[in-house]
Amino acid sequence: MFTGLAAFPLTPMNERGIDEQALIQLLIRLTSAKVDSIGVLGSTGSYVYLNREERLRVAQLAIEYAKGIPVMIGISALRTRDVLQLAEDAQKTGANAVLLAPVSYQQLTDDEVFSLYETVTKSLSIPLCVYDNPSTTHFRFSDHLHGHIAQLPKVRSIKIPGVPDLVSAKQRVEQLRAHIPKDVTIGTSGDPYAVVGLNAGCEAWYSVLGGLYPDICIRITRAALGGHSVNAESQSAFLAPLWQMFQRYGSLRVVATIAEMQGLTNYPSLPLPLKSLDGLARQELGSILADLQLDS
Amino acid sequence: MFTGLAAFPLTPMNERGIDEQALIQLLIRLTSAKVDSIGVLGSTGSYVYLNREERLRVAQLAIEYAKGIPVMIGISALRTRDVLQLAEDAQKTGANAVLLAPVSYQQLTDDEVFSLYETVTKSLSIPLCVYDNPSTTHFRFSDHLHGHIAQLPKVRSIKIPGVPDLVSAKQRVEQLRAHIPKDVTIGTSGDPYAVVGLNAGCEAWYSVLGGLYPDICIRITRAALGGHSVNAESQSAFLAPLWQMFQRYGSLRVVATIAEMQGLTNYPSLPLPLKSLDGLARQELGSILADLQLDS
Repeated sequence: MFTGLAAFPLTPMNERGIDEQALIQLLIRLTSAKVDSIGVLGSTGSYVYLNREERLRVAQLAIEYAKGIPVMIGISALRTRDVLQLAEDAQKTGANAVLLAPVSYQQLTDDEVFSLYETVTKSLSIPLCVYDNPSTTHFRFSDHLHGHIAQLPKVRSIKIPGVPDLVSAKQRVEQLRAHIPKDVTIGTSGDPYAVVGLNAGCEAWYSVLGGLYPDICIRITRAALGGHSVNAESQSAFLAPLWQMFQRYGSLRVVATIAEMQGLTNYPSLPLPLKSLDGLARQELGSILADLQLDS
Repeated sequence: MFTGLAAFPLTPMNERGIDEQALIQLLIRLTSAKVDSIGVLGSTGSYVYLNREERLRVAQLAIEYAKGIPVMIGISALRTRDVLQLAEDAQKTGANAVLLAPVSYQQLTDDEVFSLYETVTKSLSIPLCVYDNPSTTHFRFSDHLHGHIAQLPKVRSIKIPGVPDLVSAKQRVEQLRAHIPKDVTIGTSGDPYAVVGLNAGCEAWYSVLGGLYPDICIRITRAALGGHSVNAESQSAFLAPLWQMFQRYGSLRVVATIAEMQGLTNYPSLPLPLKSLDGLARQELGSILADLQLDS
């Protein structure tokens, strides 16, 4: 399941709770588009802002509405105790895989991070994807540590940060591959550079925009994985104005704002203190969307 | 209450829960030493690793054992909804003040952080200390934002990161003071540079070591605030080997290891994935402690 387009939908919410109807509508868009897998409760799913009961409910809805598409559930938390509980919840719910990032408050050591993955994988009967996202976890994996963790049972994929240019991306993928078992896939994230990652040899795109606009993201993924790198690049380049907004405001705020503006979610849809875009930024995003005319 | 030595004790715990007896023993050390205030559930109190019920219990114990010394309670959380609940709990428990940091997963904007403080201070009937700690929150306050927040009702102090040298520290304090009301104090943190902060004009030391060894930290604070800057410096310099360990391993791991080694807490005392020091680092710390011969 760790190949192709993994679509990460928002978890629409407000200060009273999760907007279940909006989440269901987002899930239906993903199954209609036939994404390769669905990843709920990733960064885009605002996992760390939800309590255990809310995370369980999102997991249940995702599996109920996935129509057989594999579902990966984010189980990251600051404390190992909580990660273990979330892993148990995910497995009981029928998840096909879990996604785990070393989220931190106190800066973590390599030894602490390895022990986290070692402890959690021991408790798992389903595969795990390592979530390497230094911009939110503030933890930097060495290749040595990646290699060590990738050899743990159940580890089947690594979600790496985006690399802006093809030469560096190819180097990055090659270097990482030299450290990890052959059956562990590498998936790119950082949507603006996802096409670079796919063209550089990543087997999967762990995608933010794919959680909202799966069709175009599937087309980019299929083109790149099918060897049509120039076609994939030009499709991604078409989205450049959107990628610039991602880089300026963070992908979560941008996709949440789009979902609100398009009526796919209510307003507000993000957990305070996070806010979607307002004022001129919201207007600019509206113009970009009007130009791009994206379908689902 | 935002002057002098504010001592931040550990919250000793293991994977089953809080070690209440050990916490009480740490609190008794602080009241015996007559620290100026006690700050529970700061970074050293591992607040973000505890659930709401556990945080309530720590707050209750702190107030019960404080013997009239003012108690400040950390109410930081990733989500505004949770901060508001924690603020309510702290107030109901009888806290004298609360401490709030803009902890983040998604990078926060200035507007989001201001709104957080605005919303929370509206709900408060007790004073608030702004907790500026970019190494754990990954948020950098501008002086403009500090000034804006410091004018909110209930804001009475700012806990700033340490500044290594006296000239820069004086500049930092002067510059910040130009932006904030006169009745808002500035407290230094970053124990290795605390004496520099106090000598540069900070009114308080928000102290990690003070939560474990209050006596020497009170002496340093009294000397510095009494104008005996050289005396204060030489007392802090005496602790240099300890400060070096703080910088190398993080102050939390070092004080937790000391507490374990001295039998003040059980082992383990930190929430996994965090670990106290082991191997050579633990041995080195043992030698340092044997040399320093610190009392309570």
